[in-house]
Amino acid sequence: MDDTAELSRPAEGSYAVIFTSLRRRGEDDNYAQTADRLRLLASQQPGFLGMESVRDASGMGITVSYWKDRASIEAWRNHTEHAEARARGRQQWYERYSVSICKIEKEYGTP
Amino acid sequence: MDDTAELSRPAEGSYAVIFTSLRRRGEDDNYAQTADRLRLLASQQPGFLGMESVRDASGMGITVSYWKDRASIEAWRNHTEHAEARARGRQQWYERYSVSICKIEKEYGTP
Repeated sequence: MDDTAELSRPAEGSYAVIFTSLRRRGEDDNYAQTADRLRLLASQQPGFLGMESVRDASGMGITVSYWKDRASIEAWRNHTEHAEARARGRQQWYERYSVSICKIEKEYGTP
Repeated sequence: MDDTAELSRPAEGSYAVIFTSLRRRGEDDNYAQTADRLRLLASQQPGFLGMESVRDASGMGITVSYWKDRASIEAWRNHTEHAEARARGRQQWYERYSVSICKIEKEYGTP
């Protein structure tokens, strides 16, 4: 889920899921293909509003996805391919990760 | 505010500020020193709970800072050095940026 060079401007009242992770060294095994596939699937989900993702050379990454409501986040969480990829992430790809589900109260920035 | 290789585990009910930005090319001018200084100042603010920051080689960056409440975010926003740095950011360092202030409703991850 890396290297998406766009900035989303989610509406106040919508939701952000902050996924912070540290990649394990030397365990690539379809990571990039899986990330691309998940990005595509997420973007097709009802309630998906956008995604931003950055990973640096140290393996540290932050992905923020934006959603209409908690129900759309929950539906994406229950998507079979997403659940399978998360299991592989826990077992293979990530040294550590954290997920925060947040409601956007205020939003501003460049146009 | 780059390359902080730690994962914060903010409490549910606390706040996240998501700062997404694209660096302008070839405008360095004390950026790294200012970022280090701001990170130090932020960490000394009342209500500061943690910070994660990643920027990739393309110049795309996401920084998430965690705060006890909206009042502590507002106080940091009004800090003189922070306000000055934001003005320089808008003028010099960033091509685009966005800020989202969010309340954390749910949080989980590796221990």
